Amino acid sequence: MRFDPDDPRSVASDRFVLSKGHAAPVLYAAWAEVGVIKREDLTSLRDITSDLEGHPTPRLPFVDVATGSLGQGLGVGVGLALGARLAGSDARVYVLLGDGETAEGSVWEAAQMAAHQRLDNLVAVIDVNSLGQSGPTMLGHDLRAYQRRFSAFGWRVKLIDGHDMREVVTALRWARRGRGAPSVVVARTVKGKGIEGMEGREGWHGKPLTADAAEPAIQALEGRLHHVPAPPVQPPRRGRARQPAAGGPRLPGPEIAGEIATREAYGNALVRLGASDPRVVVLDGDVKNSTHAEKFLAAYPDRYLEAFIAEQNMVSVAAGLAAQGWVPFASSFACFLERAADQIRMAGISRSNVKLCGSHAGVSIGEDGPSQMALEDLALFRALPEAVVLYPADGVSTDACVQLAAMHRGMAYIRATRMKTPGLYSPEEPFAIGGLKVVRASGADRLTIVAAGITLHEALAAHDELRQAGVTVRLIDLYSVKPLDTAGLLSAARATGNTLLTVEDHYAEGGLGAAVLEAVGDAGVAVHRLAVREIPRSGAPRKLLERYGIGRGAIVTKVHEILAG
Amino acid sequence: MRFDPDDPRSVASDRFVLSKGHAAPVLYAAWAEVGVIKREDLTSLRDITSDLEGHPTPRLPFVDVATGSLGQGLGVGVGLALGARLAGSDARVYVLLGDGETAEGSVWEAAQMAAHQRLDNLVAVIDVNSLGQSGPTMLGHDLRAYQRRFSAFGWRVKLIDGHDMREVVTALRWARRGRGAPSVVVARTVKGKGIEGMEGREGWHGKPLTADAAEPAIQALEGRLHHVPAPPVQPPRRGRARQPAAGGPRLPGPEIAGEIATREAYGNALVRLGASDPRVVVLDGDVKNSTHAEKFLAAYPDRYLEAFIAEQNMVSVAAGLAAQGWVPFASSFACFLERAADQIRMAGISRSNVKLCGSHAGVSIGEDGPSQMALEDLALFRALPEAVVLYPADGVSTDACVQLAAMHRGMAYIRATRMKTPGLYSPEEPFAIGGLKVVRASGADRLTIVAAGITLHEALAAHDELRQAGVTVRLIDLYSVKPLDTAGLLSAARATGNTLLTVEDHYAEGGLGAAVLEAVGDAGVAVHRLAVREIPRSGAPRKLLERYGIGRGAIVTKVHEILAG
Repeated sequence: MRFDPDDPRSVASDRFVLSKGHAAPVLYAAWAEVGVIKREDLTSLRDITSDLEGHPTPRLPFVDVATGSLGQGLGVGVGLALGARLAGSDARVYVLLGDGETAEGSVWEAAQMAAHQRLDNLVAVIDVNSLGQSGPTMLGHDLRAYQRRFSAFGWRVKLIDGHDMREVVTALRWARRGRGAPSVVVARTVKGKGIEGMEGREGWHGKPLTADAAEPAIQALEGRLHHVPAPPVQPPRRGRARQPAAGGPRLPGPEIAGEIATREAYGNALVRLGASDPRVVVLDGDVKNSTHAEKFLAAYPDRYLEAFIAEQNMVSVAAGLAAQGWVPFASSFACFLERAADQIRMAGISRSNVKLCGSHAGVSIGEDGPSQMALEDLALFRALPEAVVLYPADGVSTDACVQLAAMHRGMAYIRATRMKTPGLYSPEEPFAIGGLKVVRASGADRLTIVAAGITLHEALAAHDELRQAGVTVRLIDLYSVKPLDTAGLLSAARATGNTLLTVEDHYAEGGLGAAVLEAVGDAGVAVHRLAVREIPRSGAPRKLLERYGIGRGAIVTKVHEILAG
Repeated sequence: MRFDPDDPRSVASDRFVLSKGHAAPVLYAAWAEVGVIKREDLTSLRDITSDLEGHPTPRLPFVDVATGSLGQGLGVGVGLALGARLAGSDARVYVLLGDGETAEGSVWEAAQMAAHQRLDNLVAVIDVNSLGQSGPTMLGHDLRAYQRRFSAFGWRVKLIDGHDMREVVTALRWARRGRGAPSVVVARTVKGKGIEGMEGREGWHGKPLTADAAEPAIQALEGRLHHVPAPPVQPPRRGRARQPAAGGPRLPGPEIAGEIATREAYGNALVRLGASDPRVVVLDGDVKNSTHAEKFLAAYPDRYLEAFIAEQNMVSVAAGLAAQGWVPFASSFACFLERAADQIRMAGISRSNVKLCGSHAGVSIGEDGPSQMALEDLALFRALPEAVVLYPADGVSTDACVQLAAMHRGMAYIRATRMKTPGLYSPEEPFAIGGLKVVRASGADRLTIVAAGITLHEALAAHDELRQAGVTVRLIDLYSVKPLDTAGLLSAARATGNTLLTVEDHYAEGGLGAAVLEAVGDAGVAVHRLAVREIPRSGAPRKLLERYGIGRGAIVTKVHEILAG
C-alpha cells in the first residue's frame, strides 16, 4: 500500500477497508507494526478512553468509514475507488471481507457496480474460514462456489491458501495487473489456525482466551510468524491526482420562484451548485427522472453515477466518495432510501459527508399507494445524532436547502414533495440550518400552526379560511426539522396562548410533531398534532390529505376544536 | 396454478407474487379474466374507494403481501415455499420479477437461501425488458448474464422469448420438473411490444396513453392476443397439507424469575411457546448464540430456519411464512434488524403477522462499540401504524411479552438487552399489550420516572439513592412502548406534580421519551427526558450508561435539578 500517515485522506493514498470489522484487533496490530499507532496503546483496546474501539471508526486516521455492520465495506470500497478515479488518482482500494458477510445482498450490489464501472483499482480479499458467529457459513470451504458467483458478477477471481504468505503476496500482485475489471482473492483459511483446541473449532467467535491459555497460544503463533522488519510506509505518488476543492459561498437566488415541485427544484439546485462546487457528485437509484437528478446528469455527465435499483450500495458508495473529499448527493424516493437504513446509520457513525434527498414523501403522492409513500423517513433521519434534516416547501427554499446541505460538514437529508406547490419566498430570502420562517403573524393570533413542505401549503389555505371566519392564527414554516429553532417555536407559542398545532405528511411517531414536542415538551406548551395515523391507500392526493386528517379542512376543524377548549 | 378463490390463504393453494408491483393493472386484469374479481371493477383502478390500488396490497384475497418496493418478492416467495413445505403441502410458489429489480441485493439473498433450502417448489420468472424507469438496466438484454448469476447461485435456469406463449408454457412445465433446486425462467421481452411509437422506447414507464392513442393500441394488441376461454380455476389438492393451527392460552409463569439477560429469557420463552403453539417458527441471522434463538433450534430443529447474515431476506421470508399461517419469530441484534427497515415497512403495509426480536439494544452492550448498538430501533418500529413494541426488563416480563406477541395478530417487536438484569416480577404477574407497571409509589412522590428495559434497573437504583436523600419518586415500567397506557401515565403525572422524567437507552429522537411526549404532550404535563444524545464509543457498560447520561447517577442528578426548578 502507498500511504502517507501525515495525509491519510489524500486521494493519492491507497485505502484499506476492513469490512469484517470484528477483526479490529488485527487491524490495530498491523498499523502498530508499521508505526502509525503506538504499540503500548494496543492494550487500551475497547477502553472508554481509547480510540481503539471494538470495531473500527474514523476516529482513527487510517479508517475511512466505520465498519462492524457486515456487508458494507465493499460498497464503500466501490465509492473510494470511484472517488480516486474521478480525481485522476491511480491509487488502489483494498477491502477485506469475511466469508459469512457475503450472504448480505449489499455485497452483490457492490460487486455488480464495481464490474459495471470496470473498477480495476479495486481489490477484494475474502477470508473464507467457513465459520460464522453461530455456526458454519452457507458455503463452508467451497471456494469454487465463491469463484462462480464473483465470476458471474464480472470479477477476476483467484483462489489461494490464505495461510501461505507466498500465495497471498503473489495474489495481491496478480490483483494489481487487472485491467477493466475488479479483482477478488478468495483465501481459504482456518479459524484459530495453529492454536491447539481452537483451530477450526466453533464457539470461539469474539471470545478472549484465559490468561493461562493465552501464553501457549502466543508461543504457537510466534513459531509460525514470518518475522520481517516492518516495511517503510511508501508515500503515494501525487502525479495527476487532484484533491476535490471546496466551492464558493452561497449562490445568488435562483430565477424560478414560482410554482414548482420541490423535487424538480432539487434537480435545478444541483445543476446550479454543480457549476460553483466541483466537489459535487450526484447519484440516483434509477428514479432520476422522478427526483430530477437527471438534470445534473445532463449538465455534468462526468460527475453523475447511476446506482441503479440498489439503494444500500448507493449510500455506501456515497460514503466512500465522501471519504475521498467529494460531496455526494444521492437521491431516490424517500421510502426507498429507507432500504439503506443501516448504511445510513453507519454513515452517521462514520460522520460521512453524505447528502441524501428523498422525494415523493407522504400520502400526497397519491395514486401509487402506500408502498411508494415515505411516512417514517423523518423518524429515521432525526434519530441520527449529527444529521441535518431539511424539508423545504417551495423552489427558493429548496435551492437554499441544497446549498446549506453542501456547505454543512456531515450528513444532511432533504425531504422533497412530488406535487407542484406555489412559490412562497423571494430569491433573496435568507435560510439557515436551524432556522424557521414565521409566514403568517398578527397581534391577535390565538395559536401557532407549525408545518413544513406540503402541509405548509395546506396550513396557508386553512389560515385564509380561518381568517374569513374571524380566527387568526400564526403559521411557521419549520423547514429545518433538525436542528430546529426551539427559541423561535417558544416565542411563537408564548405569543399565541402557549398552543402549537403541528401538521405533517408523516406518521404520528417520530416526525415533525415529535420534533416540536421534544423541543418544547418541558416548557409548558400544549402541542396538538395532525399526522397520518393509519396505513394509507391509493387515491387522489387531495382526497388522501383530507382522509388522513392533514389537509386544509382537517386543519380548520382542528383549530376550531382546540380553541373551543 | 391450483387455487381456490373461496380459500385463497390455504397452504394447499399455489401462490403468485408480483414482485414487480408496478405491473398491478395486469395482475388485476388476469384475475378478472378468471372471474375472481369483476371486470367492471377494473376501471376503479387507483381510486380511493377501490381495493385495486396502484401497487398490490393484501386487501385483495389473491395478494399475500404488498409489493411495490422492488426486490422483495423473491424473499417472500422463499417464505411461502418454505411455509408450504413445512405444512406438508406440495403447492408451488411463482414469483414474477422485473429485470431492473434484480439489482437489489435482497434478490440474491433470497436466491441463495432458496438454493440452500433446495426449494424445488419455487419458480421465478424474470421479465427482461431491458428498460428501467429512468434508463436501460445494467444488463440490458444480456440473458446469458442472468443465466450465469442464477446458475452460480444454485438455480436451474431457462432462457425464453417472453412473447412466445408456447415457450412460456413449455418453460413453466420445465420449471415444475425441477428436483432439489429452485427454477428461474428468464424471459426476453420488449416493453410496449406491438404498439407503434411505444415498442422498446423509453419514457413510457407508468404513463397512461391519451384516449386518442389508446384506441389503435388496443386494436393492435387485440390482433396479437390468443383468445382462449378462461381456464376453470383448479382447486388445490389438500392431501397431506396441514394448515398450522393456533396454540392455547397464555402459559403458566416460567420458573426462572431471577437474574437473567432478557435476550436469554427470549430464547427460553420461545422454547416454552414452541411446545404449546405448533405454528411458531423461528429464524435468526447467524447470531442465534447471542439472541439465544439457538435454544429453539435445539428443541424444535424442524421449525428453525437459519437465515444467515441476510436480514432483509430474513424479514421477507418471515412475511411469506406468516402468509402461510405460521407465526414466525425472527431475531438479530436490534441494529441489524434495521438493515431490513424497508422490508419491515412493507410487512407493516401487508399487515404481516411477523414477530421480530432485536437484542443488544443501546449503549449498555459496552465494548463492541456504536456499530453494534441499536439506538434508533424504537423510532423505526414505533413509526409503523399497527406495530406493537414491547421492551421487557426481566425474565418474567420477557416471557410474557413473547406470548403477547404470539397472540397478537400483526407485527410485534421485542427489544432485548445484552447484559443480565435482576428479576422484578413473580411468575404470576399479569402483562398486557398497552399496559404499564407502577413499580415504586408512595403518597409523597414528587415526580414520576418512566423507564423500560435496562434503564428501569438504573432508575430503581436511583430511586433507592434518592429515597435515602429524602426524595421519593414514582417509577413506571413502560414495557409496552406501543401502544402505551396514556391514562396510566397521566394518572401518575397528576399525582406527582404533573412532572415526568423519561430515561431510555436510545437516541433522544423518536424513542421512549418521544412516545411519552406524543401521548401526554397536549395535557399540560412537563416531560423531561434523559437519552443518548451523541454518537457513543466503546467502553464498559456501566461507564457508558453514565457517560451518556442515562445511568443511575445521571438520573439522581436530573431529579434534583428538576425539583430545584
